Amino acid sequence: MSERQQFGNADEAEHSAMQWEVEQKFRLSDVQKVAAKLTELGVRFTEASQQTDRYFNHPARDFAKTDEALRLRQVGEENFITYKGPKIDPDTKTRRELELPLPHGKHIPEQFAELLAALGFRPVAIVQKKRRRGELLWEGHDVEVALDEVEGLGSFVELEITADDLTLDAAKSALKALSRRLGLGPSERRSYLELLLAGKS
Amino acid sequence: MSERQQFGNADEAEHSAMQWEVEQKFRLSDVQKVAAKLTELGVRFTEASQQTDRYFNHPARDFAKTDEALRLRQVGEENFITYKGPKIDPDTKTRRELELPLPHGKHIPEQFAELLAALGFRPVAIVQKKRRRGELLWEGHDVEVALDEVEGLGSFVELEITADDLTLDAAKSALKALSRRLGLGPSERRSYLELLLAGKS
Repeated sequence: MSERQQFGNADEAEHSAMQWEVEQKFRLSDVQKVAAKLTELGVRFTEASQQTDRYFNHPARDFAKTDEALRLRQVGEENFITYKGPKIDPDTKTRRELELPLPHGKHIPEQFAELLAALGFRPVAIVQKKRRRGELLWEGHDVEVALDEVEGLGSFVELEITADDLTLDAAKSALKALSRRLGLGPSERRSYLELLLAGKS
Repeated sequence: MSERQQFGNADEAEHSAMQWEVEQKFRLSDVQKVAAKLTELGVRFTEASQQTDRYFNHPARDFAKTDEALRLRQVGEENFITYKGPKIDPDTKTRRELELPLPHGKHIPEQFAELLAALGFRPVAIVQKKRRRGELLWEGHDVEVALDEVEGLGSFVELEITADDLTLDAAKSALKALSRRLGLGPSERRSYLELLLAGKS
């Protein structure tokens, strides 16, 4: 769950409502089974899109220790740069997130990686995944569903509800009920980056 | 004069010919006089465009000492981020320059300024200028001309020829001859940023 300031485009810059992402992720041993249950519940999955995330460490502080992240994300021709601040509340995983669009094009991430390198940022890891997305109405909440096949890590499902202060508790309960219905659990709290780095050491 | 690696767009990423910018800048007391001489020589000036440059200092090193620069440039709806490396040769002012496009939109610089702030970059100064551009064929060289009205500094003309190794010396001579013809001199070697900061202290 994270407080997100997301700027989809320039005209949305004024938008800064207090929103929360209630999010849970689960490792899957049988993707087809979970995909079938979700389809039963009405989810229609998109085609898989390739997402490449390049993570960087800061020239003067260790993001692993400060609990921050800087990421270049490529999804097809689209590109984004994302900063994640430290979790303000470890329990709810509240954190600041700034995601900005970069120009389209397949060489853009390389070019920004070069810029970041010139500024002293060090590449940490590349997370590559194939993601299929879907949506589900569950207990009155719009749930975003993602089936991820992560290179070097395996398969996961992510469930996410965007809530405000008033709907936060209900969203948490709804997510819990949905994960039970799908036979999922326990949830994986670590990020893909953390899992990849843990696997390396 | 600088060695420039400029990425206009994704498809030009492969382009990296060794080019030099032979460039001189002169403070003007009488803009109209110089503009008239240039018009006589065939220059047709564009309408003035507003350029806003935001400069940042690094979280862990002092760019004023390392002779680097990080800049967000806004020209109308267009936006760029530019890194300038230290001058490799103080005499010819050779330096690495990485200029990358950002998405269009008037709020984009604020958003990237916020991202840079989150990463520990400190705003140093904002250079605002009105620029009129023109082109001139002079002694066989294409000369780019810019008439700048810089907030807090006054008026300047910039003359620039892009050369390769073979035409470098001829370009330098041509620029010298042109500046004499225009009655200009001596040249101002400091950047607008340096001039602004010098004026503040």
